[in-house]
Amino acid sequence: MTLVDAVSSDRLALSRLLTQVENDTTEGRAALDVLFPHTGRAHLIGVTGAPGTGKSSLVNQLALYYRKHTGKRIAIVAVDPTSPFTGGALLGDRVRMRDLAGDPDVFIRSMASRGSLGGLAHATAALAQIFDAAGYEIIFIETVGAGQAEVDIARLAHTTLVVEAPGFGDDIQAIKAGILEIADILVLNKADQPGVEITERALRGMLELAHPVRRNFLHHGKVETLDAPAGLSENLWVPPILRTIAIQATGSAELAEAIADHREHLRQSGDWSRRERARLEREVEALTLETLAAQFRAGILTTDYEKVLSQVFEHQLSPWEAVKALVNGRQA
Amino acid sequence: MTLVDAVSSDRLALSRLLTQVENDTTEGRAALDVLFPHTGRAHLIGVTGAPGTGKSSLVNQLALYYRKHTGKRIAIVAVDPTSPFTGGALLGDRVRMRDLAGDPDVFIRSMASRGSLGGLAHATAALAQIFDAAGYEIIFIETVGAGQAEVDIARLAHTTLVVEAPGFGDDIQAIKAGILEIADILVLNKADQPGVEITERALRGMLELAHPVRRNFLHHGKVETLDAPAGLSENLWVPPILRTIAIQATGSAELAEAIADHREHLRQSGDWSRRERARLEREVEALTLETLAAQFRAGILTTDYEKVLSQVFEHQLSPWEAVKALVNGRQA
Repeated sequence: MTLVDAVSSDRLALSRLLTQVENDTTEGRAALDVLFPHTGRAHLIGVTGAPGTGKSSLVNQLALYYRKHTGKRIAIVAVDPTSPFTGGALLGDRVRMRDLAGDPDVFIRSMASRGSLGGLAHATAALAQIFDAAGYEIIFIETVGAGQAEVDIARLAHTTLVVEAPGFGDDIQAIKAGILEIADILVLNKADQPGVEITERALRGMLELAHPVRRNFLHHGKVETLDAPAGLSENLWVPPILRTIAIQATGSAELAEAIADHREHLRQSGDWSRRERARLEREVEALTLETLAAQFRAGILTTDYEKVLSQVFEHQLSPWEAVKALVNGRQA
Repeated sequence: MTLVDAVSSDRLALSRLLTQVENDTTEGRAALDVLFPHTGRAHLIGVTGAPGTGKSSLVNQLALYYRKHTGKRIAIVAVDPTSPFTGGALLGDRVRMRDLAGDPDVFIRSMASRGSLGGLAHATAALAQIFDAAGYEIIFIETVGAGQAEVDIARLAHTTLVVEAPGFGDDIQAIKAGILEIADILVLNKADQPGVEITERALRGMLELAHPVRRNFLHHGKVETLDAPAGLSENLWVPPILRTIAIQATGSAELAEAIADHREHLRQSGDWSRRERARLEREVEALTLETLAAQFRAGILTTDYEKVLSQVFEHQLSPWEAVKALVNGRQA
């Protein structure tokens, strides 16, 4: 049995491999090399938003919808980069996914932040590659918050949903201006709660700020109806704002349709492969840096390194001067 | 006139140099090398917290307090890493500091996020070094939010204040668990607003989670009064929670006292130099990586790089295999 067959059919084998990959072991890296030619088919859907917006329930409902209406296999990678210190996993995840737990074609994986954020984005990308090779056609990548970590992780996705809910104050909205710019679809969840009109207006205003070039098209609704200049309309995706009530499963069909529209847009505009290529290029760059650093560490004597560092501690050498000494010292 | 004299006495020269350093120019790097032996005297105070907690007013009041009661020169570096896309500076900063604007011994510098977060933390460190060499004895580093960016920037500081305000919901609190773990002093600002008791209780509970080993000491208040086991008390800093009303200047004296206590603690415990050394070591590491990457880019043919990348795009080579080809190719 090939590795692809094994991870496609054996949940335990898949689960073990995910752990190897998450821990960046030699075995995990070797498996990624073997599986990589089998990747590139899955639709990666990033889902991000502040705690309390109901992201998890939304992903839950979308997964249920896809299972009911398509034959597609679903993977969910839940990432929590907001607690770099405690290292705890999302306890809630295991609980919340009760509806999906019995389905052999749904795989849920929680990942807590370890080490650097670059490392987290890299680990997430690697897990997604495994799921992709294992035949999971839709992969949700769920992150909490609105910082650089989420932006980095969202860059992995083909389609990024940003989830909002009524009742967040203006201050909180302000911090999200950055994340709005990566939104392909805005989801206004908990749409039965008071303040939904105000929040939607605020979001629309912020979208205009985030996408000034699309300002004139934002109020037209769907992309297909745009009265855009020729040549612009095909390449222009205007992030729609969709209302949902995830805990009542309201709005899932419309959201799934918007996701399908976005996928179609990506395919037709060529953005699908552009995003893939940009992502792979970033991955190669990051791994190259990692390898160069490892080679450097292996090539330098600890005593030499300590000696230079202590000169920096004594303020005799500046950090840049130290680097020149270290890097030239190695080459000499 | 030496460079140190110039930046100490000439605000325009200092301002120009800060721009050089922020833009990482050759001139900026050379100046950092020259000034580095004159650094190591300033007390770096990090101030972070969500938007709306009144961080800026608090820094404003603290700066006024120090100016009134000490002869110390004050620098404020305001960093906004929350908007990686728009690149806009904090407009509010220039407005808010009205009280300080006329004082020749106060220097305020806003910095917007550019490029990577590592780069932002590095640029902030470099600006702080310039201020340090220019004789600014207290340097505030103010950041917005509670993500990894703030954690990285907080690591530059000797003393980190985390600012909270009443009225943030439980969800919002939860996301801040990580940032609490880097707090040396917790400031509960806007302490005249409803809900202050609830927020203080919540903070105390989260502090206990964040610092389990200090659980038994958390309710004793000041460090000096701790009934801790021998040997532990000297090295144990229990983050105090202080109430302030920055816009009324209430609590500034107590906060300045807590900061002085923490400084004294750092000096006596040896943590002052440990933090300095850890910070300088991280800086040397980051600059080494940057240099290795630049050397790698300079040593590889663009056509070779593109060729390997296109094999990755075609899924013929995995990212790791590509790195092996690139790095070995360079060495051959």
